[in-house]
Order: sequence, then C-alpha cells, then structure tokens
Amino acid sequence: MNKRASIITAILALGLPAFSQTWIWYPGDYEIWLGNRMNNNRTERGAFFPPFWKTDSHFVTVEFSKDIEVPEDEEITIKTEGRYNVKLDGKLQFGEPSTFTIPAGKHKLNIKVWNQSTPPALYVKGKNVNSDASWKVTNEDKEWIDESGKASDTSATTYAQAGYWNLDDINVPPSTFSLATRPKAHVAIIEKNDGGRLYDFGQETFGQIVLKNPTGNGIVNIYYGESPEEALDIDFCETLDKIEFGKNDVKDMATNSTSRREKDYTLDNSKAFRYVYVKPENGINVEDVAMLYEYAPVEYRGSFKCSDPEINKIWDVGAYTMHLTTREFFIDGIKRDRWVWSGDAVQSYLMNYYLFFDSPTVKRTTRLLRGKDPVTAHINTIMDYTLYWFIGIYDYYLYTGDKDFVKEIYPKMQSMMDYVLSRTNSEGMLEGLTGDWVFVDWADFPMSKQGALSFEQVLLCKSLETMKLCADIVGDKDDALLYGDMATALREKLLPTFWDEKKQALVHNVENGKRSEQVNKFANMFAINFGYFDEPTTESVMENVMLNPDVPAITTPYMRFYELESLCDRGMQRRVLQEMKDYWGGMLREGATSFWEKYNPEDKGTEHLSMYGRPYGKSLCHAWGASPIYLLGRYFLGVEPVKPGYEEFSITPNLGGLKWMEGTVPTPDGEISLYVDGKEIKVKATQGKGYLNIKSKTMPKADYGNFEKVGPNSYRLWIDTDREIKIKYKEI
Amino acid sequence: MNKRASIITAILALGLPAFSQTWIWYPGDYEIWLGNRMNNNRTERGAFFPPFWKTDSHFVTVEFSKDIEVPEDEEITIKTEGRYNVKLDGKLQFGEPSTFTIPAGKHKLNIKVWNQSTPPALYVKGKNVNSDASWKVTNEDKEWIDESGKASDTSATTYAQAGYWNLDDINVPPSTFSLATRPKAHVAIIEKNDGGRLYDFGQETFGQIVLKNPTGNGIVNIYYGESPEEALDIDFCETLDKIEFGKNDVKDMATNSTSRREKDYTLDNSKAFRYVYVKPENGINVEDVAMLYEYAPVEYRGSFKCSDPEINKIWDVGAYTMHLTTREFFIDGIKRDRWVWSGDAVQSYLMNYYLFFDSPTVKRTTRLLRGKDPVTAHINTIMDYTLYWFIGIYDYYLYTGDKDFVKEIYPKMQSMMDYVLSRTNSEGMLEGLTGDWVFVDWADFPMSKQGALSFEQVLLCKSLETMKLCADIVGDKDDALLYGDMATALREKLLPTFWDEKKQALVHNVENGKRSEQVNKFANMFAINFGYFDEPTTESVMENVMLNPDVPAITTPYMRFYELESLCDRGMQRRVLQEMKDYWGGMLREGATSFWEKYNPEDKGTEHLSMYGRPYGKSLCHAWGASPIYLLGRYFLGVEPVKPGYEEFSITPNLGGLKWMEGTVPTPDGEISLYVDGKEIKVKATQGKGYLNIKSKTMPKADYGNFEKVGPNSYRLWIDTDREIKIKYKEI
Repeated sequence: MNKRASIITAILALGLPAFSQTWIWYPGDYEIWLGNRMNNNRTERGAFFPPFWKTDSHFVTVEFSKDIEVPEDEEITIKTEGRYNVKLDGKLQFGEPSTFTIPAGKHKLNIKVWNQSTPPALYVKGKNVNSDASWKVTNEDKEWIDESGKASDTSATTYAQAGYWNLDDINVPPSTFSLATRPKAHVAIIEKNDGGRLYDFGQETFGQIVLKNPTGNGIVNIYYGESPEEALDIDFCETLDKIEFGKNDVKDMATNSTSRREKDYTLDNSKAFRYVYVKPENGINVEDVAMLYEYAPVEYRGSFKCSDPEINKIWDVGAYTMHLTTREFFIDGIKRDRWVWSGDAVQSYLMNYYLFFDSPTVKRTTRLLRGKDPVTAHINTIMDYTLYWFIGIYDYYLYTGDKDFVKEIYPKMQSMMDYVLSRTNSEGMLEGLTGDWVFVDWADFPMSKQGALSFEQVLLCKSLETMKLCADIVGDKDDALLYGDMATALREKLLPTFWDEKKQALVHNVENGKRSEQVNKFANMFAINFGYFDEPTTESVMENVMLNPDVPAITTPYMRFYELESLCDRGMQRRVLQEMKDYWGGMLREGATSFWEKYNPEDKGTEHLSMYGRPYGKSLCHAWGASPIYLLGRYFLGVEPVKPGYEEFSITPNLGGLKWMEGTVPTPDGEISLYVDGKEIKVKATQGKGYLNIKSKTMPKADYGNFEKVGPNSYRLWIDTDREIKIKYKEI
Repeated sequence: MNKRASIITAILALGLPAFSQTWIWYPGDYEIWLGNRMNNNRTERGAFFPPFWKTDSHFVTVEFSKDIEVPEDEEITIKTEGRYNVKLDGKLQFGEPSTFTIPAGKHKLNIKVWNQSTPPALYVKGKNVNSDASWKVTNEDKEWIDESGKASDTSATTYAQAGYWNLDDINVPPSTFSLATRPKAHVAIIEKNDGGRLYDFGQETFGQIVLKNPTGNGIVNIYYGESPEEALDIDFCETLDKIEFGKNDVKDMATNSTSRREKDYTLDNSKAFRYVYVKPENGINVEDVAMLYEYAPVEYRGSFKCSDPEINKIWDVGAYTMHLTTREFFIDGIKRDRWVWSGDAVQSYLMNYYLFFDSPTVKRTTRLLRGKDPVTAHINTIMDYTLYWFIGIYDYYLYTGDKDFVKEIYPKMQSMMDYVLSRTNSEGMLEGLTGDWVFVDWADFPMSKQGALSFEQVLLCKSLETMKLCADIVGDKDDALLYGDMATALREKLLPTFWDEKKQALVHNVENGKRSEQVNKFANMFAINFGYFDEPTTESVMENVMLNPDVPAITTPYMRFYELESLCDRGMQRRVLQEMKDYWGGMLREGATSFWEKYNPEDKGTEHLSMYGRPYGKSLCHAWGASPIYLLGRYFLGVEPVKPGYEEFSITPNLGGLKWMEGTVPTPDGEISLYVDGKEIKVKATQGKGYLNIKSKTMPKADYGNFEKVGPNSYRLWIDTDREIKIKYKEI
C-alpha cells in the first residue's frame, strides 16, 4: 500500500472524513510555469540561456468552482497564490477571506484568483469542502449581467477539470516547489600549481556547490566538468560560476544577486558535473568544497539482474542516467540544455515505464511540451518532435490506461494536429517549411532534409492513429472517422511513394518529385516497430537495411534505441545483447558513470567530449543514453501491456544468451516479477492477466494452469493469479 | 515646439548626439499587463472583481535585437525588467552586464529578457546605441544550431518593431508606472448622529482617500458615493473600504495587506466618488479626510466657447468627464467597472480627437482590447464591440494618418476578422451564437437579440471596409481584394434583407427566416452616418425613423452620440443644440458634475441613481456621456479630416442658433482655430490644407484667397496658409 493509501486508511479508522485536499490550478498551467523556471536554469559560461522556441505562460486570471452540499454549517480555510474573491451562490463576499463559513445546504462556490507571476492556485480545506481534481476551472467566466441585474447564461464558458499534482501541504504553495537535496562529498582532490583545486565527486552528479568556510575577500571561480579535461579548461568548459566575497556580502557575478555572507556559501543554481575546478583569485581561501545533490524523489520500482556483470552495470548506470535526467520534467541531458525536448522525452517515457512508472512526470512533461494555443511552431521547433508528442500519448495510454489524461489533453491534440495538417503538401505529406527544423538524428553521414522524408511520414501516420485512438476514448465519432481514414490513406501511400523494390527499402525522401536513392535505417526501423510492413517485407528489410553493413551506421544512443528495438522485435536478443556490451559497455570502458548523448567507438580520448563544434559540447549524461533500461525490461524480461494499463499483459522472456536473469516490471498498481534461466521460470503478476509465451524443447510444466502449444516449440500459459508460478521448461 | 523637440534642439546645440532612448518591449504586451493591473482595480463592496472575459498576459521571454555600427569603442548601459543575456555577433557574454563595451564597427546586438511577472522590458543608453522603436523584437528566436555548431537560418523568426510609449527614464521601469496625483480637499462636512462624517469633495472625482492623523485603535469604515444618498447607504453603496488601525500597523481589511502606522494613512486603491462617508468604529478618531486626486497628465488641446453659458457648461463638464475616464486607458466609467470596453472606447477616441488628441492613449486602448491570440471570444464578449474595434482603427487612421500603427496592428486585425467570419451564418451575416453577448444598447423597450440584427450587419460592413483600407496600407493586395469584395457584397445585401418599403426603414432583425416588424433607430442611424443610403432614402429615413416620435426614444448618451451625429450630418444643428440643452442640460439641472451612463428625463429623484437592479448601480461619470465634446467640435466648429492625418481638412462651421462660438480643434502636429458669429469668421490652421465651407446670403470676402460659389448661398475657400484669415459674410 502506498503512503497516501495507508494514511487514508488511518484517517478512516479514526472516524475522520476521507476527503483529501491539494493545491489546484488551471490544467497544464503549473507545468508551463515550472517548465519555464527549469528550462531557464540553463547557463552557458555564466550567461543566462532560455530556450529559442516560444515560451508560453499561464492564464493569469482563473475561476475555480464547485457545486457543494454540506450537512451543517462548515468553516473552510482558503489559501491562494494570487489575489482572489469568493462568491457563494453568485454573491461576492467582502475582501479576501482566509476562512469562510458555508451555511448548511446546497451551494455554488466560486473562487476567482489573479496572479501575473505564478499560476493562480487554490487550496480549500474543510470537513466536506476541499480543493481537489473534482473542481472545475475556467479562464473566461462570461458572467455578464443585463441592465436589470439578471445574470447571463454562462453555458458558453469552457470549463476544465482542475489540474493538480501531489502538492498537498497548504503551507507549501506550488510556486515554492523544489526537488529534494542531500549533501554529498567529493572523493578526491587534485592540487594545481596555479592555486586551484580540482574536486572529483566520483561520478556524474547534479546539484549546488557549497563553498565551505571561505576566508578573506575576493573572487572564487568555479569551473565545472563532466570530465577533468573540461573542468580544467577554464576557457572552454561549458559552465562556470564566479562568486565575489566581500566583507559582509557575497555576490553571484553572473546574476548580480547578493546575499549576506555566512560561514558557508551555497550557490543558487544547480549544475551538472563530476569534477569542479575551484580557483580563488588572490586574497581568498576556500577550506573545502562540497555539494547538495539535487534529485527527484522517485521510487525505483523496476529492477534487473542477470548472469552478466557488465549488463548489470549497464542497467545500473542506465537507471542512474534516467534518475539524473528525471527532474521537474524529463530533460535531455543535465549539463548543457537542461531543457525538455519531445524526441528525448518520448524515450524517457518508455524507460520510465520499466523503471519508475512515474506517471505524473510523463503527464507534466507532455503538458509542458504542448504549451498553450495558438500553435505557431513545431514542438521545440522540430517537426519530428511534434509527431513524437502524439506517439508519447499513445504509449502513455497503453501503459497506464489513464483515460482522464487523454480527455484532458485531447483538445490540445486537436489544435496541434490542425497545425500539422495545415503544413502538409499536395500529397498530404509533411515537408519542412520555413522555420521547421527537420531533425531525424545527429547522423555522421550527409542526409537531405528537403522534400518529404519517409521517416516523417511514418511518424505522421502513427500520430494520426493516435488521434483516432484518442478520439475514440473521448467519444468524438467524427474525429475518429476522420483521423482513422487519414491514417489509413497515408499508410497506403507509404510504399507506393518510398519503396524501392531493388533496394528492398523505404528510401530517404522524395525531393522535387524525385525519389532519392539514399537508404538509411530511420524510416525502415520505425515502420518495422509500428508493424507497417507485412511479414515478408519485414524480413527483407531486416536483411537489406537493418543488418546490411553498407547502410550507414547509427551513432547516437537516441536512434540505437529504435534500431535495437527493431532487432529485438525480430527475436534477435542474442545479437542485441552483444551490441549492448559493445556500445554501452564501450562507454563504460571509457569511464562513463552515466550514458552519453553520442558515442562513436572510433573516437579516441578527448574526441569523445566534443560536439557542436565545441570541445566539451557533448553531454555525458543524456536520457536517451539509457535505453537498455527499456530494452532489457521489454525484450529480455519481455513484459509489455496488451490492453491499456496492463489490464492484459504479455510476458515473453528471452535470455538472449544470458545464463539467468531476474527482474521486476512495474504496472500502474502492481508489478510483474520474473526469474528466468534455461530450465526454470518463476513469474508473479500482482496486476492484470495475460499470457506467458515461451519457447521450449519440451512441453513446459507449471504449478498453476496449463500450457497451450501455439507453434513448433512455442507455448503459452494464461496467468490469472497474483501468486508466483513456477515453470519447468527446456531452453532452445 | 513640444518639450522633447525643444530638448533635442538644445542637445544638438551642445554638439551631443541626437539619439533619444526609451524603455521598449514586445508591442502590445505592456498594454496587456497594464490593462490587467487597471481592470483589476475594480472592487464591489470590498471584493476584488476582475473582468469576466479572458485575461491575456505578456510573452514572458523576448529577444530584442538591432544591427548597429559605432565609429569607435562605445560603452552602453543596459537595464532590463527581467533576467537577461547579451549576445554580440552571436556570442553570449558572461552574466547580466549593466555596462558593456561595443568595439568599433558593425555588429549585431541581441538582448534576451525573461520576466514572468511584468513585461520583459529593455533600456539601452549609449552614445550611438540606444533603445528605441527601431529595435526588433521576437518571442521565438528559432536560432538552433546543428551538430557542427552552425547556426540555423533564422529567417523563419517573426520579428516585430519594439513597442514603446513615453517611459524615457532609465530609473523608472515600465512596471512602476503610475498616473499623476495631487492633493485635493473637501469643500464641506456633514456630521451624522452615529459618529460618522460625510465629506463632500465638491464634484465627481477620483483618487485615494487620506485619513489624517487617526488617533486611537479600531476600524475606520469608508463608504463612497457619487451621490450623498449612496455614501450614506452603508448597506448598498457600490464601493467601500475598511481599514483597521492597530498600535503599530494598519491593515487594509479587503486585501489583508498591512503597513506600518504613520501619522496619516493613504489608501492603496483609488476610488471614484464625490462624497465619502467615514465612520470609525469605537476607539478611533480621524482628524480630517483628504484625497490624492489621480489623473492622466494629458493636455487640453481642444477648446470651445460660445454665446450660450449652458452649452459652455456642458462642454466643460463633458471635458472633465472625458478627463476622468481617460486614464491608463480610456475606460467606461470611473466608479463601477473601471474597465476598458470597446464600444465605449470608440466614442472616447472620437471625443479625444477634439479634446486631447492623445494618440498614445488610443493606441494603448486598441492594443489592450485586442489582447493576444488565439481569439476565443468577442472583445469584452460583445459582438458589436468587436466590430467597433475595427471601426476605431478606421477613425484613428483618418484622424492621425499613422500608418506605422496600422502596420503593427494589421496581423491582429486579420486574426480577429478570421474569428468574426468563422461565425457568420449561411447568408454571410452575424448572428449571436452561444457565448456571444449581442448588446446594441441598454434600451427601455423590448428588443430581440436573436437572428441577424441589421445593426450588427451595418457594423460588420464598416469593419470589412476597414480591413480593406488597412490591407491597402500594409500592401496586402490579396486581402484588399478579398475584404473589398466582401464589404461590397454585404452592403448590397443590407437593403434586400432588412429594408421595409412601407415603414421606409431598416427593420431590427431577421429571425428564423422571418423579417421582423420592429423599427428602431440603431441600424438606421449608423447606415446614415456611414453613408450607406442614397440621398432620397436618407431623407426618408430621417423623416420616418429618426424624427418619428413613434419610433422608441434612445435613453443612453451612448446611442444619443450616434443619433445626434445623424441629425448634425443632415444639417440639423439647431435642433441638436436644443437637444443638448434639454438632455445634457437636464443632467446639469439634476446636479451632475460629470455626465452619466444613462439619463431618462422621466425619472425622478433617486430613480436617477439606480441601474442593473441596484439602487446605486448607475455610473454618474461615464465617458459616453461626454459626446457634446465631439458634436460641438465636429459639427458646430465643423472641423474634420478629409485626408488621413489632416493632410486635408474641411471646416464647415454651423452656429446652430448660437450668436457666436470660438474654439480650437487639435490636429496631429498643429491645430485649427475658429471664431464664428453671424457676420465674421476668423480661421487659422497650423497644419494641413483644406476648404472652409460656409453658407452666406452674399458672396463672402476673405483677407486671403478667394471664395468659390458651389451652390445657392454656398461658398468655399481653399486654405493653404497657417496665418489667420478673416472673413466677412452674412449668416442665413
């Protein structure tokens, strides 16, 4: 039982009412505000660096309302962020009352809040009347009156269900939210000749530097590095700080903010680093340097262990990479951008389902990425990233079964898709128009971004399917028909437009009416993963594209994610295991303590550090580096939802050459645990029902239920119990 | 020469560079923010009362940029509202520098500012490099880089010219703007039995109450009234305050804000009143009550004086009414809403052209009313008010000739018109849909708001003409063609749809395919004013509608504005003069010191105070009450622009029965002064050229130029000098 559930049980046991209360706001607005605060923590060599895309903001005036009924007079406590008024049954009350008595009976309670700086937020606490997700909220109440004082019909006002998270403490308003911190010490110091000291914190980390007991006056320069080379390269390291200690005050020279001088000084802004090079300028001495490690207090609900210690290390470092990049939102990398990017996020979501299963972070990230209307550009300005945003919602629904979120976000899906469809060409396909960043991947080979890319159309097709799915969920039949038809029509155009019979591949693009000769893996692997090829075509594409050494290699963990997924999808776990050991193992052998933005095994030494034309431009802790978390959970343990929210699951373990493996995959309200070796499988699913699918030389035997044979050496067992099942079988 | 021009002359005389600098921001954003601050000053009996329409907010992150060239190294001073960075030739600089040296030569300077609370604003001061309207600004810079560090093409970024006003002082950031104030004393005190005192400030006024030297502790209740009845009616007065004096602190009980107790206490929020009833609760005594009169420091550039003292009083009270309602923006009335309403504003604009000619206030109001995209409702939720918004731009351009503003606002006109046209019926006409407030007027007779109202279509027609005019100005040929065609087509449909041959009138509406029988003045007088009828039709409508006692009378000064304009337009100044004396003179005889929201001569005593079902709901200082300012300038002095910005004017004086009149009508950069009696006219125009048109029994004689005869007893004189011209003529 989770903490809240157990507290509620305790509350009920005491005979108290079971109502909970929490801070509420206009849905999505808190995320947009918090996202601005987070994205704007990016700095580049001491310069403030906000995103280059449109930054949205919250509705500044919103009205919360609820129809209530109280059996007797009830005093409620009201707290807001912002100026407010209170209307009971249409009558405005004097002032901004912090307590207010509701007379017994049925009432309509409206509280309107205005806040320019941070999202208008409300907390109401009473015996029966409490702020929670059941409140309605609007940003335009349209309650005009006519000359006689008669109120207008307000049926035209658009109400939404109030947004919320887990901010349940009346004394901690949403705008004061911060991540958790704990002190952390360095593991080594290297003295330098110039009076500076290099502190090694032992592994990639994130947080605020603490300067311990500085004595004297002067400037302390702090240079951060994910590598020692970076921290020591004071002219080119990506991030730095300069703190000036005066007699009484301390000044952050980047932000010009000053504070009273105390014994220790903790920097305002968190940074990513493993090393910090601290170099005081004459007259000042710093006794020691420590840090406050800053992190999201998420729970590790997934686990993986196996017979190969290197794979275990890969899983652990992947999990740590994911934890570092799971913050207020899922971000890309912790050093440089610290921004929320849709293409990165959609992978974080999938990894999250096998590690934290933290749905609120998925929802927050989805809301922030979408922002407010009007849509004037692609998400993060990137065409593919807009399309991933839809796909992320598809995945979210499949893993969580959360229809409420689909209902909340659907209107924003509609306006986003309106924007997408307003930019299709005469074939109904997406081409990069002025202002569109057609990204695909950081590839090491030349790739045209002009015309219609097969890759973008495959993503568009899946996005339209997502629209159809969600239209069905919200019960919009017209939309469901429309988007369903469009998805089908586009899918039927993919092969005629891009298929090259000779190359047995989708070619890269059609430009100026001419089909390109280029073949790369991007569109082909997505088409495999989305099931857009028939079986013979898939086989041929595997051979002629995915496993063809003449097709350019992928060098980012980002696209390796999908590439290895394709191989796993074809049962090539043995090969994927080796690729993981080569590629992610390669990073570990280079000393990685978190996984990187890009890894080219051909690079040597400090070549591994450079990117974007800058010697330390590469992020050494990048969410998309953590894909083994997903691959091991989904394709080795083999656990995935078949029906939304794991109402039905499928478990298809594949050792891929490992002697044994064991692990846990979280589900919305439970988990699926597995132990697998060549002879025995133990499985326990505390939520849902579904098949265990295995290959065995002989008919497997279970201590619960009966296996069916479904093909040569293929068997399945229906699992509809939450007790552990033991299976004997014989690995092929 | 205005102050700035003379200062610049002085600067040049000293050999200093002539560059001025001012605070700049994203165009429209400051207005939206300032408008929120102002609109949200409304209170209702101590409750905070924001508007019921969608409240927009500023872009929180914007980038200012300019291509600059400096002959030698130049140090600039930078001040912002918000966190910021500085980029010179694409290179980010350390920190948030308050001074920065630009090396000699050509450069690209970018400064990006983030501010959630108030609009990001920038002030740059150097020898050559200064913040002014020539800077560009964007809210989405789209400057991504590729893997090699190469910057993207930023041609897709939408730049606007920076917004500005007259906030030229680096030490007074835009968010600290406040109106001017000056102390004002009461003229009478009436002691009441219950320990309260009624203070009379002698006339309608606006400002903050000052409680002088309160002694003891306790609560001071302050009840405001535009009438003594209202101030003394503590249960029903529209506005009130409660201030609690403790030993050391003073608490505003409505906002819960506290401050240190000083000798005098000045209330935070300004209020409208003539009377305040101050009633201390036990233990506290207030020595005296004063006020800080709060006002916009606009200049009275227009004037009017004539032989009739009552008309002079009407003009003076009208001018004062206009001054009270000309604040951060043109508002409706000062007591109740204190909001910006488009239908009210469009009249204020016209009066303003004959009084202050303060174009910045027109522009600010136009920007605020429009708000941000997306458009999700009509302006102020009112269909007619959206249409007036377009018409206000038409008028603004005609009076000022300001093409820059048309270029700035045109994209927002387009999206507003998109919204309007998305809501037309199968006839291309506007009907009230769910959520639309179809207002027209506070009429004393029943009037259907269903179906297509002729009134709304006349306004739509003029709005489409405005779109055509502005499309021509911005050089958008497609739009000009489109909107021109639509305006023509709609205009051609007006008579076939609404004309009743028997009644010789446009009927009120068509509802469910059925033409109504109702005739009122609204659509008919607008069609006259817009010149939509031919001459015989106009004459017939005048007789059968406008002068027909069986057609219901108009009882708001709001619609009397247009009604009397129609009469003036037909040369019926003599009648209009009498109507002014009856109607506005009637208010003066009731004791008005400013003009009212509504005046029904049939009402008696306190009936004049009530509206909206509330005993003091009526506003006794309402901008739309001041229309004589416009009527006397435009139709008696007879001055109007013929070509935009008074490049050509026409002067058609009409004494309307007065013995003499004299006055001044401001033009963008000058003024037109007139003296007229039955025998002599003196005219002086310091800007523009144009005709003086007069009726005379004999050929008039001028001491400059020669009159032409243009009809029986009709003469005109071409004026192309800025010296005073004296004319002898003989009034008919």
